[in-house]
Amino acid sequence: MKTISEKTIERLIIYRGLLLNLVSDKVKNIFSHQLATMTGFTSAQIRRDIMSIGYSGSPVRGYDIQNLIKSLGEFIDGEEKQPVALVGLGHVGRAVLDYLKGRRPKLEITASFDDDPAKVDRVFQGCMCYHVNDLEKIIEKENIKVGIIAVPADEAQSVAERMANAGIKGILNYAPVKLNIPSGIYVENRDMTLAVEKVAYFARTASE
Amino acid sequence: MKTISEKTIERLIIYRGLLLNLVSDKVKNIFSHQLATMTGFTSAQIRRDIMSIGYSGSPVRGYDIQNLIKSLGEFIDGEEKQPVALVGLGHVGRAVLDYLKGRRPKLEITASFDDDPAKVDRVFQGCMCYHVNDLEKIIEKENIKVGIIAVPADEAQSVAERMANAGIKGILNYAPVKLNIPSGIYVENRDMTLAVEKVAYFARTASE
Repeated sequence: MKTISEKTIERLIIYRGLLLNLVSDKVKNIFSHQLATMTGFTSAQIRRDIMSIGYSGSPVRGYDIQNLIKSLGEFIDGEEKQPVALVGLGHVGRAVLDYLKGRRPKLEITASFDDDPAKVDRVFQGCMCYHVNDLEKIIEKENIKVGIIAVPADEAQSVAERMANAGIKGILNYAPVKLNIPSGIYVENRDMTLAVEKVAYFARTASE
Repeated sequence: MKTISEKTIERLIIYRGLLLNLVSDKVKNIFSHQLATMTGFTSAQIRRDIMSIGYSGSPVRGYDIQNLIKSLGEFIDGEEKQPVALVGLGHVGRAVLDYLKGRRPKLEITASFDDDPAKVDRVFQGCMCYHVNDLEKIIEKENIKVGIIAVPADEAQSVAERMANAGIKGILNYAPVKLNIPSGIYVENRDMTLAVEKVAYFARTASE
């Protein structure tokens, strides 16, 4: 498999997200310079990224949006549906469930976990909530490789270790804590505080 | 004010977030190469970033963590407390409220908005929920410059325009939709789906 940088993947995912929103607007074609305006990346960068997945547009008509979405999807999603495990059904966990529901056919949260008796054995957005004690059993049985951590900071490390032991290969961590995880497992941290800080910085300096 | 790139700000915010977690671990000093291991950035990059805010460590003892946190804070936060407005108290909005609560003294969600009668006029995490009809009035009265959008996609554009009219200078948008906003207002988009897609990609290709 061709190696592609993390930043390129991020951009390809952003392009697809934007294009999926455009589809409902009934636009058929798009030029790299239009994608540039929408994303803040340069046209050259965008053409290079899209070329790297083996797709190209027409100089006259630009990219065919439906075909480009299809090519991006084949690259980003692969062929098989990927099941995802979510640990923690507080506000963050429920938010992620709501976001994913029905929006990406190849990506589905098939199992969620919590230790709250009011949540265990109930179904949320079509997804069964199991007791967190059953984490390894379910992840192995369903052959899940993608995990989302949405538990409090002091529980995140233990959940991450259990995920790693059960065969998870990629972790999206919403807990505001640095995880110590064996190499070979991809970890992406999303502390929601940091995004607010960044916007606050630019809001402040814009007014100065 | 010295211009500093968006990427540098992002990294400075990440450093501070990590250092704040270390404080509770009672570590006093840290070297750039240790920060490099924790963040994935190079030591040279980290030293350059920290130098750019006018702080420097000792070659023998590294950075004094408390002082570095203080310098980073002065740069990231500025002097004044920044009030933040949050629109939408669904799971995403509640999650952001939970994250920020008590974690950044200079950044506080002082007003939230919803149109659900069960939420309006109630207090969530110490933050009053107003009816969304009062958005402009409250934002102007409290001189709020930072806004967070956590409403469904089809309501986000209208909320963003109202925020802009009321004087908001930076918007953190969690709605999965591209906003059309006058230039001069900083917009950061955080569609939670994209983060899951990225982790799923690396989980899949790690196993191939």
